[in-house]
Amino acid sequence: MREVAIIGAGSTKFGELWGTSFRDLGIEAGAKALADAGLSGEEIDAVYVGNFASGSFIKQQNLDALVADYTGMATRNVPAVRTEAGGASGGVAFRQGVMAVASGMADRVIVGGAEKMTDLDDDRVGQILNACLDAEWEAGMGVTLTSIYAMIARRLMADGIATREEIASCAVNSHFHGARNPEAEYRKEIKLDTVLRAGPTCDPLTMFDGAPFSDGASAVILCPLEDARKITDKYVKVSAVAQASDTLAFFQRDSFTSFGATAAAAKEAYKLAHIEAKDIDVAEVHDVQTVGGVLALQDMGLYAKGEAGKAFLEGQTHFDADKVAINTSGGLKAKGNPVGATGVSQIAELYMQLTGTAGDRQVKDAKYGAAQSVGGTGSSVTVSILEAI
Amino acid sequence: MREVAIIGAGSTKFGELWGTSFRDLGIEAGAKALADAGLSGEEIDAVYVGNFASGSFIKQQNLDALVADYTGMATRNVPAVRTEAGGASGGVAFRQGVMAVASGMADRVIVGGAEKMTDLDDDRVGQILNACLDAEWEAGMGVTLTSIYAMIARRLMADGIATREEIASCAVNSHFHGARNPEAEYRKEIKLDTVLRAGPTCDPLTMFDGAPFSDGASAVILCPLEDARKITDKYVKVSAVAQASDTLAFFQRDSFTSFGATAAAAKEAYKLAHIEAKDIDVAEVHDVQTVGGVLALQDMGLYAKGEAGKAFLEGQTHFDADKVAINTSGGLKAKGNPVGATGVSQIAELYMQLTGTAGDRQVKDAKYGAAQSVGGTGSSVTVSILEAI
Repeated sequence: MREVAIIGAGSTKFGELWGTSFRDLGIEAGAKALADAGLSGEEIDAVYVGNFASGSFIKQQNLDALVADYTGMATRNVPAVRTEAGGASGGVAFRQGVMAVASGMADRVIVGGAEKMTDLDDDRVGQILNACLDAEWEAGMGVTLTSIYAMIARRLMADGIATREEIASCAVNSHFHGARNPEAEYRKEIKLDTVLRAGPTCDPLTMFDGAPFSDGASAVILCPLEDARKITDKYVKVSAVAQASDTLAFFQRDSFTSFGATAAAAKEAYKLAHIEAKDIDVAEVHDVQTVGGVLALQDMGLYAKGEAGKAFLEGQTHFDADKVAINTSGGLKAKGNPVGATGVSQIAELYMQLTGTAGDRQVKDAKYGAAQSVGGTGSSVTVSILEAI
Repeated sequence: MREVAIIGAGSTKFGELWGTSFRDLGIEAGAKALADAGLSGEEIDAVYVGNFASGSFIKQQNLDALVADYTGMATRNVPAVRTEAGGASGGVAFRQGVMAVASGMADRVIVGGAEKMTDLDDDRVGQILNACLDAEWEAGMGVTLTSIYAMIARRLMADGIATREEIASCAVNSHFHGARNPEAEYRKEIKLDTVLRAGPTCDPLTMFDGAPFSDGASAVILCPLEDARKITDKYVKVSAVAQASDTLAFFQRDSFTSFGATAAAAKEAYKLAHIEAKDIDVAEVHDVQTVGGVLALQDMGLYAKGEAGKAFLEGQTHFDADKVAINTSGGLKAKGNPVGATGVSQIAELYMQLTGTAGDRQVKDAKYGAAQSVGGTGSSVTVSILEAI
């Protein structure tokens, strides 16, 4: 297999973008990524797009064709593929795009992710999001994504793995970084008290533990590593793309304080990249609820069980703390969470960090970056590792 | 890249399967395919699944995880990927599965397709299907999939490319074969008059020009060609998997009597397989409406423009006619069209034909088979070529 590089990235601002259509979001992110790579759309020979639920959100399926069309690729009949894996839709699209280049089936690939969520009322959006759970054993019984994360929080607290304050600190960390990312939906730092005293969603979680419903799109450009240096000075190597599954329903898991699929995907990713967890300098993790951030750090081996929450609380996760920097983009919580875009936007953030173009939130001398993208409550997880060259 | 083989296939019966859940359909098709290959599920290291709109049909997204879970793969964290490309969802899943084996990222892959459509009323199903059109410029204005095919029919007739009788004959051909396929939804031969005199859907098309709404699932097992002969005597080579896109909206096309994406994908597929259209012995084409069958034969170069309709009318397309046999499974029209399953079921049919296990509809000495899977009105098309070994 060929080694693969990322040579460009671009994102729209994330937020409630009522004046911008799904199509325009995709075009903007794609055009920015192409411009960043210094490529023309004419050079792209395959398109991958991650999207969660456009059929429900905007009554548009056949999304591969839409993306090929509105990026101008359809006039050349460029093949496009849409992947869906709940919140991991973008992560899975990235993995398939990397596979296309690695296999030799494509030479210049654009991987995009997009979601348009805010055209519906919040209740309906919540229902659609809950379709990432088990429809028969969870969502159909009234269980919601947030309620499962709330139960995980209770379990973490009861088992002495993390305190309520430590869990809430994941959101404080995300906002700390979101304030430094011009494309983030929420650009304000918050205090721990803000999270703890916000209105409850599912006790003990509050409004500030959860990521917002957002519109947005992100894209990255891939090519063989051997071509990258001829195209641009600004490229990173894709050292691993791993993916793992777990039971769809959460109650069937062996552990309620760990996502086994994260652990499995991370283990595979480190093996493929020939590194260990301690080598990671910067990581983007799936904090759709703060709890998810705590689990991620533990399951990826970045912190021992019981230490991840503390790391958030003590600010060890900040971009300038000289430890592994977590969610320098602002994470799902502050950057925003247009579901299908999220996994790709994580890759875009790491690309910036590893090419030294992350501005006010730049991690010093970052060599290895890891992105973790989660579908459902850890039923499908991708872990990708990028390396500065 | 490694050469890839198919070593097993299985399908559920297609139809209104009100007593069988989406999950049970998937399990049945997967288990049949594994048994056919003589493999245990333990040996599978990647899963691909094509599905059109489970979020809308059964309120279930995150379908990759569901499939991994209910096939027992989740206990080993096997990665699963869901693709969506309208009616081509299954064809795209097959292409990605082949890519996974070709690239060396997986050694034993199951590619499945499934859809559960009949739990909703027909009006709602129709709305969901129309989401494969352009939501802003077509479906949102009241245009339906059937109405576009009806306009294509009018154009074919006006331009002297096919008569109404010739177009309708595509359905007669599908029923001729469906009667010989135990898994088909409709197992009765019909006469041309039955199609012409049925209730109108969009004039000139009638109820008998269109494929039904169906439940069902299909699966095939892939491995490297070099391993295939060690596992089974019953295997075929995957000689090509090609995919092409076109504008999402039909009105933006250059031609209204051709699907450019079919022509582009077929051209690429023949090139990859080092064959010509005239080498194809058996083909499964996307007759979601009869018109689609006529276009397919022309765009794939199996018949010259103006000759495809005649071929159907004269029965040249029958399995025993000593020409290229078309839709020996019964096609979408008679076999049934559980959208996500359809593209995979076409591959399963070709596997049977090329291994001499197609029973009452066996094409004699079939060497090359081609499958064409269409998303929307030709906005995304896959063409795959299989070869008897």
